[in-house]
Amino acid sequence: MGFKASVLTLYPEMFPGFLGYSMAGRALENGIWSLEAIQIRDFANDRHHSVDDTPAGGGAGMVMKPDVLARAIDSVDNQYPRLLMSPRGRPFNQKMAHDLKDRGGVTLVCGRFEGIDERVIEARNLIEVSIGDYILSGGEGAALVVLDSIVRLLPGVMGNSQSGEQESFEAGLLEYPQYTRPQIFEGRAIPDVLTSGNHQAIEKWRKDRSEEITRSRRPDLYAIYEKNNRKA
Amino acid sequence: MGFKASVLTLYPEMFPGFLGYSMAGRALENGIWSLEAIQIRDFANDRHHSVDDTPAGGGAGMVMKPDVLARAIDSVDNQYPRLLMSPRGRPFNQKMAHDLKDRGGVTLVCGRFEGIDERVIEARNLIEVSIGDYILSGGEGAALVVLDSIVRLLPGVMGNSQSGEQESFEAGLLEYPQYTRPQIFEGRAIPDVLTSGNHQAIEKWRKDRSEEITRSRRPDLYAIYEKNNRKA
Repeated sequence: MGFKASVLTLYPEMFPGFLGYSMAGRALENGIWSLEAIQIRDFANDRHHSVDDTPAGGGAGMVMKPDVLARAIDSVDNQYPRLLMSPRGRPFNQKMAHDLKDRGGVTLVCGRFEGIDERVIEARNLIEVSIGDYILSGGEGAALVVLDSIVRLLPGVMGNSQSGEQESFEAGLLEYPQYTRPQIFEGRAIPDVLTSGNHQAIEKWRKDRSEEITRSRRPDLYAIYEKNNRKA
Repeated sequence: MGFKASVLTLYPEMFPGFLGYSMAGRALENGIWSLEAIQIRDFANDRHHSVDDTPAGGGAGMVMKPDVLARAIDSVDNQYPRLLMSPRGRPFNQKMAHDLKDRGGVTLVCGRFEGIDERVIEARNLIEVSIGDYILSGGEGAALVVLDSIVRLLPGVMGNSQSGEQESFEAGLLEYPQYTRPQIFEGRAIPDVLTSGNHQAIEKWRKDRSEEITRSRRPDLYAIYEKNNRKA
C-alpha cells in the first residue's frame, strides 16, 4: 500500500497540479502514493453552501466555518497526522518530511480567506505548519510543496537512490558548488581539484566549500551544524 | 502592462499549475500578470538535446550544463531580476515578495538533478533563493509558490484590498486567532471580548494574542519584532 495523501480544499482542481508530472507523476500512476482532493464545500449544510462567515469582533476578510470544516475532516477515515497549512505554523523542514514519509500518510487542510476558526484547529488536533515566512493566496501551493518533499523520499521514486541524500540539509550543510562539461565556459574553468582524480582532495574541497557557503549564507544553520559536530 | 513572469524549466507543462485557478487564475486571464514557461531543452545544440552531464569530480546525479542554460536565460529579453530556485539560496520572505512586485517582473530558473553548473550562476547573476529548509524534486514547485506570493500583492487581484495587510509577517507578528459563527461549536464558545462590541478591547486582545503566539511559536521573529518596537 502506497503513501496516502488526503487534501481538504475549496479548489480540488488544483491537485495534483505539478505533482502530476515527472517523477512524482509517474509514482502517482504506479501507486507508490495516492492523492485524494476533497471539496470542503460539499460539507456545507445550508442551501447557499456557505463555507465562510465574517470574523467575530470585526475586521477584513472572511473566516472558514468550524462546523463545515470539522465535517470535512471527519470524512477522512484514517489515523494519519493532520496538518493545517498556515503562516502561523511551525516551520516545515526536511526532518518533518522524513517523519511524515515514515507515517505512511498525511491529511493536509488548506485554508483560504483570513483563516479558519480557531476552535476547529483545537478540536481536530490540526498541526499548523508553515512552508516559509511569506503569505500565499491559500494553503494549496503549500500543500503541493509539502507533498513534493515527502513523495521524492518514497522508495522507488528517485531513479538513483543515492541521489538526494548528499543534498542540502541532509547533512546539516548547504550543498557544495557543482560543475560539468565543458571544461571552459565563457572563460571560466572547472576548479583544477575536481579534475585531478584525487578523491580525497575532492572530498575535502567539497566539504570546505559546503561549510564556507553555509557559514556565509545561513549562519543559523551553521551554528547548529557546529554544535552537532563539535569535537570532544 | 502587467507583471511579467518568465520561468525556465524542463517541465513547462507544470505551469501555470495551481496559479491557473481562483484569484491568480482570473488575474492571469485579465492580463494583470503574464506567465511564459520556457523549455530549457530547446536550447540544447547536440543531437540528443542533452541538458545535463555527470558532475566534475564524481558523485551521484547529473548537473545541468552551463552553456545550454545560459542560452535559455539569454533568450529572455528583459531587465527583471533573475532568481534561481535553490535550497542553497537566501530564504525567501514577504519583503522579497513586495520588492519583486515593485520591480514589475521576474525570471525564475528551475533546477532539476543535483544542481546546475556554478559558472552559469556567476556569469548570469542568478540570485539563489530558497522557499524553505526542505528538498523538492525540482525548482518548479518553489517557482509557483514565489509567484503566488507576488501575484496576490498586485493591484486588482485580491477582492478586498485591506485584506492581506493585517496578515502574518506584514506587521512582524503571526496572526491572532480567528472565530466566526456558530457562537458555540462542540461546546467551545467564541471568546466574550470578541462579541462585546468594545473595539478598543478587541484590538488589545488581538494584539496580545499575536504577540503571545509569535513569542511561543517563533522566538526568532519575536526577537526582531521586539527590537523594532522597543520604546525609546
